[in-house]
Amino acid sequence: MKPLFRQVALIGKYPAAVAGSQAATIRAALEDIANFVASRGCEVVLERETAAASGLTGYASLDVPGIGEHCDLVLVVGGDGTMLGIGRQLARFGVPLIGINHGRLGFITDIPLGRFRTALEPMLAGQFEEDHRSMMQASVVRDGECVFEATALNDVVVHRGTTSGMVELRVEVDGHFVANQRADGLIVASPTGSTAYSLSAGGPLLHPSAPGWVLAPIAPHTLSNRPIVLPDAAEVTIELVSGRDASANFDMQSLASLLHGDRITVKRSQHRVRFLHPHGWNYFDTLRKKMHWNEGHS
Amino acid sequence: MKPLFRQVALIGKYPAAVAGSQAATIRAALEDIANFVASRGCEVVLERETAAASGLTGYASLDVPGIGEHCDLVLVVGGDGTMLGIGRQLARFGVPLIGINHGRLGFITDIPLGRFRTALEPMLAGQFEEDHRSMMQASVVRDGECVFEATALNDVVVHRGTTSGMVELRVEVDGHFVANQRADGLIVASPTGSTAYSLSAGGPLLHPSAPGWVLAPIAPHTLSNRPIVLPDAAEVTIELVSGRDASANFDMQSLASLLHGDRITVKRSQHRVRFLHPHGWNYFDTLRKKMHWNEGHS
Amino acid sequence: MKPLFRQVALIGKYPAAVAGSQAATIRAALEDIANFVASRGCEVVLERETAAASGLTGYASLDVPGIGEHCDLVLVVGGDGTMLGIGRQLARFGVPLIGINHGRLGFITDIPLGRFRTALEPMLAGQFEEDHRSMMQASVVRDGECVFEATALNDVVVHRGTTSGMVELRVEVDGHFVANQRADGLIVASPTGSTAYSLSAGGPLLHPSAPGWVLAPIAPHTLSNRPIVLPDAAEVTIELVSGRDASANFDMQSLASLLHGDRITVKRSQHRVRFLHPHGWNYFDTLRKKMHWNEGHS
Amino acid sequence: MKPLFRQVALIGKYPAAVAGSQAATIRAALEDIANFVASRGCEVVLERETAAASGLTGYASLDVPGIGEHCDLVLVVGGDGTMLGIGRQLARFGVPLIGINHGRLGFITDIPLGRFRTALEPMLAGQFEEDHRSMMQASVVRDGECVFEATALNDVVVHRGTTSGMVELRVEVDGHFVANQRADGLIVASPTGSTAYSLSAGGPLLHPSAPGWVLAPIAPHTLSNRPIVLPDAAEVTIELVSGRDASANFDMQSLASLLHGDRITVKRSQHRVRFLHPHGWNYFDTLRKKMHWNEGHS
Repeated sequence: MKPLFRQVALIGKYPAAVAGSQAATIRAALEDIANFVASRGCEVVLERETAAASGLTGYASLDVPGIGEHCDLVLVVGGDGTMLGIGRQLARFGVPLIGINHGRLGFITDIPLGRFRTALEPMLAGQFEEDHRSMMQASVVRDGECVFEATALNDVVVHRGTTSGMVELRVEVDGHFVANQRADGLIVASPTGSTAYSLSAGGPLLHPSAPGWVLAPIAPHTLSNRPIVLPDAAEVTIELVSGRDASANFDMQSLASLLHGDRITVKRSQHRVRFLHPHGWNYFDTLRKKMHWNEGHS
Repeated sequence: MKPLFRQVALIGKYPAAVAGSQAATIRAALEDIANFVASRGCEVVLERETAAASGLTGYASLDVPGIGEHCDLVLVVGGDGTMLGIGRQLARFGVPLIGINHGRLGFITDIPLGRFRTALEPMLAGQFEEDHRSMMQASVVRDGECVFEATALNDVVVHRGTTSGMVELRVEVDGHFVANQRADGLIVASPTGSTAYSLSAGGPLLHPSAPGWVLAPIAPHTLSNRPIVLPDAAEVTIELVSGRDASANFDMQSLASLLHGDRITVKRSQHRVRFLHPHGWNYFDTLRKKMHWNEGHS
Repeated sequence: MKPLFRQVALIGKYPAAVAGSQAATIRAALEDIANFVASRGCEVVLERETAAASGLTGYASLDVPGIGEHCDLVLVVGGDGTMLGIGRQLARFGVPLIGINHGRLGFITDIPLGRFRTALEPMLAGQFEEDHRSMMQASVVRDGECVFEATALNDVVVHRGTTSGMVELRVEVDGHFVANQRADGLIVASPTGSTAYSLSAGGPLLHPSAPGWVLAPIAPHTLSNRPIVLPDAAEVTIELVSGRDASANFDMQSLASLLHGDRITVKRSQHRVRFLHPHGWNYFDTLRKKMHWNEGHS
Repeated sequence: MKPLFRQVALIGKYPAAVAGSQAATIRAALEDIANFVASRGCEVVLERETAAASGLTGYASLDVPGIGEHCDLVLVVGGDGTMLGIGRQLARFGVPLIGINHGRLGFITDIPLGRFRTALEPMLAGQFEEDHRSMMQASVVRDGECVFEATALNDVVVHRGTTSGMVELRVEVDGHFVANQRADGLIVASPTGSTAYSLSAGGPLLHPSAPGWVLAPIAPHTLSNRPIVLPDAAEVTIELVSGRDASANFDMQSLASLLHGDRITVKRSQHRVRFLHPHGWNYFDTLRKKMHWNEGHS
């Protein structure tokens, strides 16, 4: 029988600092997974840096865009951060990702390394839950010119400088004035990002299939400046009105030293990330576990 | 030229307690509006109780369902509460409503009585903004039988008894277990209800065109039980696990004395309420005004 | 050597429902503790109902007030609730309490049953940390007459009726008008109560040696109605301005059916509860454990 | 009759940018106040920079420490910020301050410029309310050496760098470990500062005579990391465990580039600021006005 996924890529986070026995462990894990996937009739492709760092030979290797173009499935060994980074790069190719975690289980990476065989076997055969995550396309416009562009899967954040006071931000949605907000900053979060920084700032949890963004102010001066959930078709613009040393942050990337009048625009990306989870997976099970619900006063 | 709206109903809140000069004021207002609308070539229909209470004659009268069947537009004179009540009754007929407020402007009723001519003139001619509000269809199932049904435009609330401790509620979404929550209660709010009780309980604002519900716990025992926004296609079930004298509330209607095991189910109604606003109206303008944004530390 | 505590009372929560093997377990625990304390040269006194329920003979027995008058130390076997109830009754006698917990450790009852010997040995010899808890003296005045009086160690709560809307409460501090608050209710919490209901309502944690009360509104209509911490010398008065079926609650006791104009007054009791903890005990260790700090995103 | 306050200093905020008609207005206001106070038998002293900027002659002038040593009362014309700055400098001299505001009324500066005569007349005669504000003495210790010292009337803040992630802070109180907190930062606020940044971060209001500090985390990772109120006798130590470009802020002064291991210690200053308010003044009146309580949904 032909496998459902013919070419399966394997990407393993390989921090430069990792060495000695830990490196050996990761190498062994990657090799085990590669062999297992190959034994199921799939062609295994190693991500180029993963191949180099692990020293695994015997499999083809490609860089991430090459994987996007040629592979049907990507297995990521690492934590949520790694998974989100790879997901962001692969979204435009439409290739699905599965996360295998060698540490604490994450919101996205829900297969423990120790049980990858049991989990992957049925998934490779087509039994899985598909979970699509919307992304944000953001740009910074200065004096009418776009000076920065980025895609974010978690959030876009505008924040005051460290030793300066509040920023004042003019918020517009689809060209309509919403408010001038004075605060430490403002977060535009996707459903995926709603369990991250936005949650710490007081934002609500947003179910991955709720098509919206959270707009959550950070330490707002005006107490009635509460988090707002907008439809994800909305285009949000944040203009820096006042405040020194403000910065904009897009998932991992930062643009420091915003100038007054800079306009950060956020809209829905035309691409979505596709995550695959084991059959029977449900978002609420993950949420309950990660939020420590039903474990007492916390 | 034929008017866009041929039959226009007029409904005025007429509290029993109102008498003397105030009653005269409302009567005069209704008469002014009726005459104005008639002068624009529309046929005016008075809601039956409004006609009786005001003593206005010379116009046809119908009860609310009759209005739903026969009229093209409904003008409501009153506050948000009145407007929501009428809207809920008329949703299944698809007839749009305009709110005229004789007190403080509301979230929905945004035409001040003193300026109804200027506001209505272009609206009757087709210049308006349309604003659709989703509703919830709720039912209470006891021992497998539906013992209560209601439609809610604002919120469905399950709440502990006054002198008893917390309730424990089992929450499910689309049949998936979410959590057992111990709290004073739990609110399922529509976008419309997100500016009401849910906001007081810590819920986010939800834009009317964001297709979702807010699930906001009231004084939850577990601090990580934060508000969740769900897609409005989701079916939410709340089961009373423990707690004495709990009640369920659906906008205005209450069902007291819930029993353990009672299951309250909330899903999207197939009907939506249609509100019309003056041309150029924008939700954020109303929000900014009602929330007192940009007015300092509050 | 003469023991530091000559007469030591033993009180064990004995729920009516407990029977069979669980009752036997509690009985055995009480007997073990009694024997241990006696072996250390103390005279053991059983609380009357504890004696009756357990069937333990061979020790003197007294009711709770009798214990307050005659004993130097009280050992309570049970959870925080039991401990707070006994503490409230014994405060006026100045006798200190030690809590032994046979379930999950509490904020107050921090000696696990299984380790009572190791914990009590040095405490009976004078090595312990003393922890004083302030209490509130509350009264309800109707038409100028006091219709209810109670002492509260956790909180005094005024709350709306179950199926009615918000209450409106007029708050005064030392005779000065603070605000009219519309909300589900209002909590006046002691430092001890700041980890209970008040915390769920959004109130801060208040260290037991911070001489203050928390005033925490429950689901307040006005978002700027934030929790306030007052000096514990302040006298707080809450007047029911409007709302049906409101009730007042004092720790465990409730006064239902408040009338408009009823004034609930809360001031510091002249008595404090004295809890003894094992040597080296620190409030923050308990707090960190109970709040699940340093355990991830919760 | 000898005046109660013999030497009265006058300090007026004189921003460099102010010029033309506005400068003339402030100059005229200062002159009016000076003449009025002199007419009441007090000796008027102008703060040196105020004298220079206004060009007022005919009165003695002193620098701020000189005022502290020689004057019995200080009148400050300006907003809360100016008042707090002067108050901090004068606290160690024990001289009381009165605030006269030429803009929006503040929490502290509650006499509008237009009514200074009516307000000051009885105050100079001894009719006033006295309001003491505690201050924090803070220091930064690096490698066992104190590298920075400051006094703060509002708050001490440790905050993450702009473009970096959370800081991890180890919090100790009186040498006891409280928790390792991961957050944007941590605020230690006095009662005075509890209406400022701490409030935006979710902290409670703290009455000026409640002898405590608020410890309020900013956007904490762990949701149960709630604000804590400590007795003001407590010594709080915050150690930077991890995070790049963190800074410490003491009211207006900043210390950028904290290093890992730096310990910021906060304790009660031995000095308090004395503010005088018009007879009948009450903290809650100011609070209600500034917080916009009793003005609807905000």
